[in-house]
Amino acid sequence: MTEHRNRAGSGRERILDAAAQLFAAQGYAGTSTRDIAQQAGIRQPSLYAHFSVKSEILCELLVETLRPPVEYAAKLFDDTDLPARDRLIRLLDFDIRGLFAGRRPVAVLGVLPEVRGPEFAEAHRLRNGLRELYGRLCGDALAAAGAPVGPDELHRTTAIVFTLVEGISARRFEDPDLDVDRTIQDTTTAILRILGV
Amino acid sequence: MTEHRNRAGSGRERILDAAAQLFAAQGYAGTSTRDIAQQAGIRQPSLYAHFSVKSEILCELLVETLRPPVEYAAKLFDDTDLPARDRLIRLLDFDIRGLFAGRRPVAVLGVLPEVRGPEFAEAHRLRNGLRELYGRLCGDALAAAGAPVGPDELHRTTAIVFTLVEGISARRFEDPDLDVDRTIQDTTTAILRILGV
Repeated sequence: MTEHRNRAGSGRERILDAAAQLFAAQGYAGTSTRDIAQQAGIRQPSLYAHFSVKSEILCELLVETLRPPVEYAAKLFDDTDLPARDRLIRLLDFDIRGLFAGRRPVAVLGVLPEVRGPEFAEAHRLRNGLRELYGRLCGDALAAAGAPVGPDELHRTTAIVFTLVEGISARRFEDPDLDVDRTIQDTTTAILRILGV
Repeated sequence: MTEHRNRAGSGRERILDAAAQLFAAQGYAGTSTRDIAQQAGIRQPSLYAHFSVKSEILCELLVETLRPPVEYAAKLFDDTDLPARDRLIRLLDFDIRGLFAGRRPVAVLGVLPEVRGPEFAEAHRLRNGLRELYGRLCGDALAAAGAPVGPDELHRTTAIVFTLVEGISARRFEDPDLDVDRTIQDTTTAILRILGV
């Protein structure tokens, strides 16, 4: 491990950068706050000035992955001039592009058993919110295409769409050289075909 | 934690059952071989008679998840009386049903950073083999439908299909009550639509 990297940015940002790198390389449970402090080039007590426990760091990384697409999707709903299908395409572009940016490969860690407790409640709330927004956009796109579906079918279709989008973070994890534009295009095409819109 | 459960079965099977339960509940890194021995109702030295390190237990759980669909898919290729599309449908049924059976919810642990080292080589080999078999079946189904694709496009389409199938194990992890038949049907429909066959 290289010590004293990530000297740029505030202490908090350096801690998040270091944690994202280490979690991705050696796992969440396999990384201690001591490792994170060392990688961030700060002393452990300084880390505790920003985060009281390790789970708080992972929760913040998950939250910062989820908040931008949730806010973007919420804004998209106000843009009623845009057809529902185009709004869905825009959300997919924004969300998947985000999963490839910066520290976001850690998003896959959200599926871990360790990440189910109440200390991750804010991440779960945002994830449920994002899935619900995907569901509403899929429902609107289907209705606009003259193929409205009931709540149960919409729920099941949304589960498939969301599984595919979340699966991208795992693929990013496996193949850091994955072509972003191509992956967005392939995933969007697949999802529009699943919906039949 | 309940001690001395899983008294049925051989020592080896009891260890695998206990490990799968614990890994799913508290994560791979959060589970010690001591926890596993206790849950299996055996002494730790007995555990080491079967597995020399913890990674060997997880590798075996991943391998037993992957081996049946790999063997099934390989056999499907010999059944040339069956159209390619039907063979793909059969593989999806077999594979997804397997992901819901027995100890297989741990399959999702295969995406972890911890599970990339050489000690998991056998699991990686089988996973790559399964993905390749999916690719060949998708390619055959597309060709049979009069829409053959080149190797690059087939590789990208297969990545999407495989992401969706693997994503099922994460959903199983989140929702133990997921309706198996319904999920198989939804996933199969989605994949046939993605392929356009």
